[in-house]
Amino acid sequence: MHRILLHTIVIDFPPDVHDAALGFWSAALDANAVQGTRFPEYHHLSDAVSLGRVLVQRLGEGTSRVHLDIESDDCAAEVARLTALGATTVERHGEWTVLEDPSGLRFCVVPAEAEDFAERSRVVG
Amino acid sequence: MHRILLHTIVIDFPPDVHDAALGFWSAALDANAVQGTRFPEYHHLSDAVSLGRVLVQRLGEGTSRVHLDIESDDCAAEVARLTALGATTVERHGEWTVLEDPSGLRFCVVPAEAEDFAERSRVVG
Repeated sequence: MHRILLHTIVIDFPPDVHDAALGFWSAALDANAVQGTRFPEYHHLSDAVSLGRVLVQRLGEGTSRVHLDIESDDCAAEVARLTALGATTVERHGEWTVLEDPSGLRFCVVPAEAEDFAERSRVVG
Repeated sequence: MHRILLHTIVIDFPPDVHDAALGFWSAALDANAVQGTRFPEYHHLSDAVSLGRVLVQRLGEGTSRVHLDIESDDCAAEVARLTALGATTVERHGEWTVLEDPSGLRFCVVPAEAEDFAERSRVVG
């Protein structure tokens, strides 16, 4: 038994449009873009007018897209649960896993770090 | 002056994968899929373990993707604000407008209907 929460929306942009798109979404959501220190390819749209957390990621290549991050206090158990439901693991980076749903849509399972995780998450599995 | 809130995540699927993907995301987010009556191409993932509302849409064609809905109490003013920030209007369906950000990423502006809109939204513009 472990806990999960769909907590974060990540808006991904290739390098040529990243800066314009980051500026647009910061203004659109009335937020301050704060660049990550450990992972500088991410900006957190701090204080965005949004129910969930919003990140903007600079991709190395590819096209603009949105992906979802499911937080969990037991990522291995959550990846196993989602795989049993029909997802496929694409890449693992430590505790952070990229998966595809049955249609090929990519999403991630990441360690819980939300301040309100305990309050807002739910037991699954 | 009007209010906005990034409230809803919409996961879009083409017809051939819609049913499998709807089943997957309902189970993944421990939710009940409730089909819309006015717009039966949408299912609301009721009681999803998510900070925001999650909808699944059956597309007529295209590829799997996630798009974001910004709610507003004045959609025309919000579309005008976002257009001034660099967005482009793609389609209008009454008060519901499809836009593209400066990178071509599609999102929507829709009328406010969240129960907590007054509490969680913010004045912009």
